Amino acid sequence: MIECVLFGTGGMMPMPYRFLVSLAVRIEGQALLFDCGEGTQIPIKMSRIGIKPIQNIFISHMHADHVTGLPGLLMMLNQAAPDGTVRIYGPRGIDAYVRAQETTLRFERDYPLEIIELDEEKGVAMDSKNFEVVYHVLRHRIRCLGYSVVEKPRPGRFKIGAAKELGIPEGPAWGKLQRGENVELPDGSVVGPKDVLGPSRPGRKITYITDTIPCPGVYYLADGADLLFIEGMFEHELADEAKEKWHQTAVQAAKQAKKSGAARAVLIHYSPRYRNDEISRLVTQARTVYDVVEGGRDGARYELKVKD
Amino acid sequence: MIECVLFGTGGMMPMPYRFLVSLAVRIEGQALLFDCGEGTQIPIKMSRIGIKPIQNIFISHMHADHVTGLPGLLMMLNQAAPDGTVRIYGPRGIDAYVRAQETTLRFERDYPLEIIELDEEKGVAMDSKNFEVVYHVLRHRIRCLGYSVVEKPRPGRFKIGAAKELGIPEGPAWGKLQRGENVELPDGSVVGPKDVLGPSRPGRKITYITDTIPCPGVYYLADGADLLFIEGMFEHELADEAKEKWHQTAVQAAKQAKKSGAARAVLIHYSPRYRNDEISRLVTQARTVYDVVEGGRDGARYELKVKD
Repeated sequence: MIECVLFGTGGMMPMPYRFLVSLAVRIEGQALLFDCGEGTQIPIKMSRIGIKPIQNIFISHMHADHVTGLPGLLMMLNQAAPDGTVRIYGPRGIDAYVRAQETTLRFERDYPLEIIELDEEKGVAMDSKNFEVVYHVLRHRIRCLGYSVVEKPRPGRFKIGAAKELGIPEGPAWGKLQRGENVELPDGSVVGPKDVLGPSRPGRKITYITDTIPCPGVYYLADGADLLFIEGMFEHELADEAKEKWHQTAVQAAKQAKKSGAARAVLIHYSPRYRNDEISRLVTQARTVYDVVEGGRDGARYELKVKD
Repeated sequence: MIECVLFGTGGMMPMPYRFLVSLAVRIEGQALLFDCGEGTQIPIKMSRIGIKPIQNIFISHMHADHVTGLPGLLMMLNQAAPDGTVRIYGPRGIDAYVRAQETTLRFERDYPLEIIELDEEKGVAMDSKNFEVVYHVLRHRIRCLGYSVVEKPRPGRFKIGAAKELGIPEGPAWGKLQRGENVELPDGSVVGPKDVLGPSRPGRKITYITDTIPCPGVYYLADGADLLFIEGMFEHELADEAKEKWHQTAVQAAKQAKKSGAARAVLIHYSPRYRNDEISRLVTQARTVYDVVEGGRDGARYELKVKD
């Protein structure tokens, strides 16, 4: 199972009723963290996830509401004694920012820290056994990156009937075939994975997009997403103001989700002008365009089941 | 009236149930802010005070839990359009820290900012019309400052009976005498303030002390305080651990409050190990020493009436 936890949904500044936008994607035993504004360590502690599984942190851009929780988080990771290297990915400037914190707060780390600046238009930020994190530049006042966690295709289902019919003895041989290896049978004949496996099953895709105006990067990242977290900062009536501030509306988010064929879309990065009981207005507007859109809520969890 | 608001009471890191220690002292139409750790802007917004009256900020020391809320606060002050110059006072290092935030987050300010590093053992950080803020070095792992807001003595009460007896006509002459000026009467004689004013009335004193072991600076600052906010991070049983970490216990805080003759003392900077329902244990221990000690609570308000 892949699980996502939305620690906060706010833009600009933390409010008494809303933490700044930050997302955890739980996959392969760790928690990938997307953005870390001021106060994000509070909802992390409120969740079951805790600090320890956070070893890869992806920053969208160098505005304060997306990064100023980093010093506190990095210090907490000291106490949590992370198992390995902590890595922070982000646009140019993230390295200077983190190093400046370490210097001016004289912070001593117990663990190795790597900071990876992502300088291309698009690329692979992180490549792990079963998934990749890809990025693409978005269009904001300053360089801003969106990310997708893309699970690699999984082998097809094992066809027990076919295996028995071919006379493959139950046991290690089945495992080898499932792992993609050939097997020699007692009669000397060779069978391969394609003889006993169904079609390979597609991986899951989670996309995180915030602080942008509509642009090609959104579509590059959101295409076919199973779960799309996407900025819907303003109501439709404020489209001009949104554009002027390099942000987008809930309706624009819905259009992008629809055009991308996202199976599920969650609005994030609300303007502080909206109280929580006003978010439904944004969601209603978005649903007139695409009815799978929902409003993100601080602390909400999302499960992604394995796809067949 | 002088009012204090305790925005948070925690040490080390913000918790779901407790913000980091931060104090506002409302005096002369502004709010003096003491310390600003990660997330402090949230309880500021929860209070009636808001951001705008914060124009003088006093930092105890350069550990993250006392300063990492500054970038967010300084950006919010932009929106709040402060009336004048914002000033940050603190130990050496505060200037480099704030400038590094401005550089690496490319933050543009709409207002002048002055950063004043307090390099002496003790001194006057700020001198205003009716009060001073004095500092004294404490004893922590790194240089750490405690502060007292000391109201200047106020003129004595105006003795109406005496004024009438001396034949001073009611009106501007009374005001002059109250402001400390001499007045010439119609018969050519001169009367002075001391003829019509009672003894001058003492000013009020609020002291803020955190992140220290017992040391002379505590007594210098807390002497005769009307309201003393003082670190009581640990229970008595952890006195050794407290000392090792350069912190102090609630019992030590109570001893200092008693010896200083503080009229009222409020424990702050609790260890995250104590839940809110465990704070009473620290308070009970402190009260065996000095029964005016109370436990600080996030959001608590304290009024200081004029003294006679």
